[in-house]
Amino acid sequence: MAPILLNCMGNEHNDYIKQQVQVKNPYLDTMEEDILYHFSLSTKTHNLPEMFGDIKFVCVGGSANRMKAFAQFMHHELKLPGIPEDIRDICEGTDRYCMYKVGPVLSISHGMGVPSISIMLHELIKLLHHARCRDVVLFRLGTSGGVGLAPGTVVITDKAVDYSFLPQFEQVVLGKVITRSTELDEGVANELLQCSSELQNFPTVIGNTMCTHDFYEGQGRLDGALCSFSHEEKLEYLRKAYEAGVRNIEMESTVFAAMCRVCGLKAAVVCVALLNRFDGDQITSSHDVLVEYQQRPQVLVSHFIKKHLGLVA
Amino acid sequence: MAPILLNCMGNEHNDYIKQQVQVKNPYLDTMEEDILYHFSLSTKTHNLPEMFGDIKFVCVGGSANRMKAFAQFMHHELKLPGIPEDIRDICEGTDRYCMYKVGPVLSISHGMGVPSISIMLHELIKLLHHARCRDVVLFRLGTSGGVGLAPGTVVITDKAVDYSFLPQFEQVVLGKVITRSTELDEGVANELLQCSSELQNFPTVIGNTMCTHDFYEGQGRLDGALCSFSHEEKLEYLRKAYEAGVRNIEMESTVFAAMCRVCGLKAAVVCVALLNRFDGDQITSSHDVLVEYQQRPQVLVSHFIKKHLGLVA
Repeated sequence: MAPILLNCMGNEHNDYIKQQVQVKNPYLDTMEEDILYHFSLSTKTHNLPEMFGDIKFVCVGGSANRMKAFAQFMHHELKLPGIPEDIRDICEGTDRYCMYKVGPVLSISHGMGVPSISIMLHELIKLLHHARCRDVVLFRLGTSGGVGLAPGTVVITDKAVDYSFLPQFEQVVLGKVITRSTELDEGVANELLQCSSELQNFPTVIGNTMCTHDFYEGQGRLDGALCSFSHEEKLEYLRKAYEAGVRNIEMESTVFAAMCRVCGLKAAVVCVALLNRFDGDQITSSHDVLVEYQQRPQVLVSHFIKKHLGLVA
Repeated sequence: MAPILLNCMGNEHNDYIKQQVQVKNPYLDTMEEDILYHFSLSTKTHNLPEMFGDIKFVCVGGSANRMKAFAQFMHHELKLPGIPEDIRDICEGTDRYCMYKVGPVLSISHGMGVPSISIMLHELIKLLHHARCRDVVLFRLGTSGGVGLAPGTVVITDKAVDYSFLPQFEQVVLGKVITRSTELDEGVANELLQCSSELQNFPTVIGNTMCTHDFYEGQGRLDGALCSFSHEEKLEYLRKAYEAGVRNIEMESTVFAAMCRVCGLKAAVVCVALLNRFDGDQITSSHDVLVEYQQRPQVLVSHFIKKHLGLVA
């Protein structure tokens, strides 16, 4: 499989060697055991290279049910032997996250918000490092509020931006705030856009994604338990966001982009817009419509993966 | 039940009237329908006053399994009819949160981190408001890292503080940062400490709780995928925290305290320390020991509730 990946991603041999997953922590390799607490896995009790060494694509998303459905979908799409319903949650020892492996694809849930996905990413990056994985691409598959987009539109993130529309993530380290870049891999984003054009009726744009730390006040919703601003002030903020290139709002993209970047991992964010925030705050579409919308990022990333594995032209 | 609560909490009639759960949003009562999206409940499809009107105690915690176990435990403690195992997840239409009702007690999971609990709290406070609940007390029951405490010690939060050890929570509203107080109810905290003294072998302290936005760099752990500081710098930060009265570190207390305060809800935070962070970063206790530790906040809050219901002296 590696040569296919090499060809598709246009890497030279030297780049490829470099792409073994790296942690940025000098202490880690001196530890006798590393307990990945929130995965209920450990370097002593699990053979991580054997379990995960062949992983090439990691797909993460907020909802445990959705990431299980994605794993079953990928099992079908990759025409793997066995029954999709039999796929086992690797993290069944904990309810913090769930994790499914389908051939070279890992599907993991991360809960909602930056802190929740950040814990998962620390332990995921350590897992990929311990497993000696190489040349891995990460995707966040999510839902979001659209900014000036029709519901159902898929947004491939250009820049992940904060509430000031800046492509940065503020991380507190020992009581001091440091700033990290949230730049994502342009090549993967463009390739995903190309994939979307190969699918039927697949409304997709590349745009900036604003990441907030709450769903209500931070996103300018008028329907939370707390609201201290007017309808007009809300619209003004959304208009400014639109002018800054923001096309959707979610709650995990900045730390996902920042951590992947620091560790040299190629990463992309693909979220469907469940509503157009200029038209309202509540998610009023029917259950069936929402389920179909939520499948769209999965279909797009599945197409990308199948192309890289040589399963579609 | 109300008179018992009145007596125990020392409220005058006027205070009691005031304690109907209030949202701080002038738009809410003008909405034809309020969809509590992440609970999969709505004012149109559910009779919220009938379902929740008698709620007096709301207990929240990160893990879905733990909050289910707490509901079953309360069912047993309150000697309610029926089988604890039959308690149904009220939010079974979604996997974002789970929710169980046991007499006047509501048990809800909130995931990990400030954004995740904040979404839940917005929808919970709206739910209590729509259900016309009165005189409700909220408890967060959690796990945490201890600062200078033996593993297993229960910490009742005096002040919830941020990474600078200040009792405040920074909330972004339409791109602007505002600061909210994180003061908790002193009476409930002292009453919980009294409850702990009535239980056998129940190591409990009142102290400040530091709330961080990640589990690794923000808490000074040396075992994350990223670590840019030394062991000595970590210890120095923990020593400063200890000097500022911090006795444990977790990831939700500031926004929990801030939102409850703004809405006039009495609230307390009760977390068990799973380890002493001066001694290490990894959680190495056995599964059985950790399970017993995690039951301690539940046992303490259960004792508080039973006292208020007149079930124990």
